Amino acid sequence: MFQTFEESASPEQGPPRLAALRDVMKTQALDGFLVPRADAHQGEYVSERDARLAWLTGFTGSAGWCVVLADRAAVFADGRYTVQVRAQVAEVFEKVDWPETSLADWIGGALPHGRIGFDPWLLTVDQLRALRDKCPDVTFVPCENLVDAIWEDQPEAPAAPVFAQPVELAGEAHDDKIARLASGLGAEAALITLPDSIAWLLNIRGADIPRNPVPHGFAVLHGAATVTLYMADAKLADLGDHLGPRVRIRPPEALVDDLSALDGPVQIDPTTCPVILAEALSGTPVEAPDPGLLPKAVKNAAELDGTRAAHLRDAAAMVRFLAWLDGQAPGSLTEIDVVKRLEAERRGTNALRDISFETISGSGPNGAIVHYRVTEKTNRRVGDGELLLVDSGGQYVDGTTDITRTIAIGQPGAEERTAFTRVLQGMIAVSRLRFPRGLAGRDVDPFARAALWQAGLDYGHGTGHGVGAYLSVHEGPARIARTGTVPLEAGMILSNEPGFYREGAFGIRIENLIAVREAPALPGQTVKALLEFETLTWVPIDTRLVDADLLTAPERDWLNAYHAEVLARVGPQVDDVAGAWLALACKPV
Amino acid sequence: MFQTFEESASPEQGPPRLAALRDVMKTQALDGFLVPRADAHQGEYVSERDARLAWLTGFTGSAGWCVVLADRAAVFADGRYTVQVRAQVAEVFEKVDWPETSLADWIGGALPHGRIGFDPWLLTVDQLRALRDKCPDVTFVPCENLVDAIWEDQPEAPAAPVFAQPVELAGEAHDDKIARLASGLGAEAALITLPDSIAWLLNIRGADIPRNPVPHGFAVLHGAATVTLYMADAKLADLGDHLGPRVRIRPPEALVDDLSALDGPVQIDPTTCPVILAEALSGTPVEAPDPGLLPKAVKNAAELDGTRAAHLRDAAAMVRFLAWLDGQAPGSLTEIDVVKRLEAERRGTNALRDISFETISGSGPNGAIVHYRVTEKTNRRVGDGELLLVDSGGQYVDGTTDITRTIAIGQPGAEERTAFTRVLQGMIAVSRLRFPRGLAGRDVDPFARAALWQAGLDYGHGTGHGVGAYLSVHEGPARIARTGTVPLEAGMILSNEPGFYREGAFGIRIENLIAVREAPALPGQTVKALLEFETLTWVPIDTRLVDADLLTAPERDWLNAYHAEVLARVGPQVDDVAGAWLALACKPV
Repeated sequence: MFQTFEESASPEQGPPRLAALRDVMKTQALDGFLVPRADAHQGEYVSERDARLAWLTGFTGSAGWCVVLADRAAVFADGRYTVQVRAQVAEVFEKVDWPETSLADWIGGALPHGRIGFDPWLLTVDQLRALRDKCPDVTFVPCENLVDAIWEDQPEAPAAPVFAQPVELAGEAHDDKIARLASGLGAEAALITLPDSIAWLLNIRGADIPRNPVPHGFAVLHGAATVTLYMADAKLADLGDHLGPRVRIRPPEALVDDLSALDGPVQIDPTTCPVILAEALSGTPVEAPDPGLLPKAVKNAAELDGTRAAHLRDAAAMVRFLAWLDGQAPGSLTEIDVVKRLEAERRGTNALRDISFETISGSGPNGAIVHYRVTEKTNRRVGDGELLLVDSGGQYVDGTTDITRTIAIGQPGAEERTAFTRVLQGMIAVSRLRFPRGLAGRDVDPFARAALWQAGLDYGHGTGHGVGAYLSVHEGPARIARTGTVPLEAGMILSNEPGFYREGAFGIRIENLIAVREAPALPGQTVKALLEFETLTWVPIDTRLVDADLLTAPERDWLNAYHAEVLARVGPQVDDVAGAWLALACKPV
Repeated sequence: MFQTFEESASPEQGPPRLAALRDVMKTQALDGFLVPRADAHQGEYVSERDARLAWLTGFTGSAGWCVVLADRAAVFADGRYTVQVRAQVAEVFEKVDWPETSLADWIGGALPHGRIGFDPWLLTVDQLRALRDKCPDVTFVPCENLVDAIWEDQPEAPAAPVFAQPVELAGEAHDDKIARLASGLGAEAALITLPDSIAWLLNIRGADIPRNPVPHGFAVLHGAATVTLYMADAKLADLGDHLGPRVRIRPPEALVDDLSALDGPVQIDPTTCPVILAEALSGTPVEAPDPGLLPKAVKNAAELDGTRAAHLRDAAAMVRFLAWLDGQAPGSLTEIDVVKRLEAERRGTNALRDISFETISGSGPNGAIVHYRVTEKTNRRVGDGELLLVDSGGQYVDGTTDITRTIAIGQPGAEERTAFTRVLQGMIAVSRLRFPRGLAGRDVDPFARAALWQAGLDYGHGTGHGVGAYLSVHEGPARIARTGTVPLEAGMILSNEPGFYREGAFGIRIENLIAVREAPALPGQTVKALLEFETLTWVPIDTRLVDADLLTAPERDWLNAYHAEVLARVGPQVDDVAGAWLALACKPV
């Protein structure tokens, strides 16, 4: 079992650790210290060693900060975690709504001038710049990590073995990727600090952090189409000669000195590059997005084929799970039972490398908590007449999946059915859309919401995020959201997941993954480059929650064609019992 | 008749005038001179005196530039005018696609260094800044207008009498507007150079430029809630004591000296403020949008009531026109006949102050020319089986209208019907939309295109522009377009005019005006501030061009409800003959 259900932090731990941190702050003549959630690689997940924010404050959200001053301390968390942060973090920490209030705003009010320490591995160039710009009378001082200094049983850094991603699945030899990226470089070299960019570039995978199959490391891409990889030799033992002569291995400890010895301008991504590495460079760096970001997002034919295969495999597991779920008496299961069974079905494929994130299994009011993770403490029985929202995914060697289905347990209410139908209309509107090349996710996002808007409803999250090919389930740079300004390109994999949440009552989300592709040429077409979405996810949508009278004819046609396709693709992969359930679930509305 | 049909310029006039201009350039030791289309007020229309670009080059488009150098000269025109500029302008002028190629790009290539003169009344602060930034080795020299120097029979500046806009129609006394804007001012005073901002602020109208009922003038809004109006006394003779004690009149000639004597920071809008006025200020100006821009766009109840009345009156004229048109044998009318009859119907209301722009009457292939204006030279017979696109509007004392209808003459072809239906679907999608406050026109624009995109079709213009209340028919700052970033606010009047153009064959556009309003509260609503559009235009849409099978049920319902409303509102206003036609035109599909 990958997922666990214990409460990993509690408010009691915070105050004594805060006191200890303040003691060591004093010895360093610091008036404050910054503790970000992030590690040096700025990803969504961190290793146990890097879980400093959780260790210090109790807060286990996937983004946030703690600012510790001599007499005040504050935890900064965003709207997803408003409830959670209050439950996990002791009174002694103020709770700040972030990013509505920025760190700089709060520091400006709390400490008009003074010295605040920070670990220069954990702050990015842009973050430090914003702090210094907005708090000109505060001195921000790079120093050792004071949490590490007081954390006696801090875990070791992860050192999982690295393995090769076969070129048949990667679709492009890593030497070719290196040459391709090097030829487009606007500098002598580029520093790469994002583990999934490195893993993609070198066709390697790892297991240093949960859920994301990547190793921790840094890399320098040289204009001469070579790479220096900063990674402990021990992790690379299983890799054989996969990396080849274009990739030189150096110990991570050598990185800072190596950077200072580099000639010519070096490219960094200021949104993710640690301060310590930017400052190690001898010249002024060229600032540009991580060179792997966009190429990684645009999947090649092999990656798309692999992803399709992974989704079919995952769909069969989902169908077995849903068939089982429907066979249980309403009220007989808990949210944890649901998570366990679903993970078991995915494990049953004998191909699951990991789940791609903690399964969200939220029933009734818990379904309305957008980033709900069930624990033994929050676990509740899924009641008769309630909605169950299950958002989950698998990491397979050939692809990463992410799917949400909302299921009626027993007889659903009228409000739930209407809302579900409107969410579905948004999901269909995006699925059916064709659009000229050049549009970005922000131009697509309103289509996912229009049916809800019509009834005065909406949801407080984006419609879709990028998804990796056996990489991070959340990947940039494109997204379907008001903040999605990167033009959509054929090959990008995105989620399409509108929702609706009635606080204290129920939550609805329907999510398929989709891939951008070129639309077939149409007679009389005047749009030069027309794009559309290919659906990747093939799992029934609960038609007991659909009010077919609300659907337009094209929407109904889409839904019925989708279910026909689900039955044709997944039916042959499941046994008779699940197959019978599937045939019923795929009946036209 | 307001509209005329002569070709107002021809290529022959250009070369001798260009030679004369170069002669005077030499006497001033200039290597070049800039001739913009714009006047000092940066509006869409200019007076005859200010039509310098047309006089010099022959080009009569509503935007563009000529750059004259000693040995090269170029006319810059945008995509709307690609064909027209070639027909109107002599060979001696190069034709440059603008803004794809900017003035600075072209100058940089043609004149690496030298002195280029410009009239500082005609260039804006932002325009000069861009030129100086991008051409650091060229000196841009303010000087007298060299076109005026050689234009012997240049018309006098217009001096039409100014009249008051009744407060019952304006909905807010001008003293109250002055106080409202002054209280929000971030400076001691604000310079206002846009005639429609001044006309709105002071509740006055004029006739200095065609189509826009505004007087030329400048104004300074003072923080103490007074205004200095720079306008010739003679123009104000009919105004009586309308302006009152808060408005001081000064001759236009006093403006530059008065500005240099102003204390404290003065606000200017760098996108429209002439260079000469910004440089007259003693201190550094505060740069901000024209203070009247947003308040003017958000109409009050009286302006909306007036606009509704103007639209009903205009709809009756349109219905009489359409009924007449339908009674003519296919092939018996020319495009000019159509324009004349439509203007006659509008004049027949006895309330028409002006047309709001030159009527576009494009049949067959002329319909595909988006900014087509028929002349005696281009006039053609509207053929049997063709589409006729008529885009027109009226200026009434209570409101400004703008409407496009595309009419089938005889039996329409299948491609035309399908395309028309898709355009209509886009127009309906915008009309039906509800959306949360905070969204901008760019978030609405894709809905107008999605049905076309589905078939690989699109149109190369925005979906909608702001419209004034007895003011400019094109008004900022909000628009429904990819460039529309200003949030939509209740009270804004916009056009909703998707189209489709098959070059060389036919053009389709369907345009209603719509007003943003708050949506009625809905049961269970979670969106805090929900907006929707009120339709202002009530004229039948040609259902002979609608393929009803392509419409969804909500689209069909919208169209039938619209036509029922048209019949109920406009039926009582027309005679029996037009009424009988109207009843037929409004039959449900």
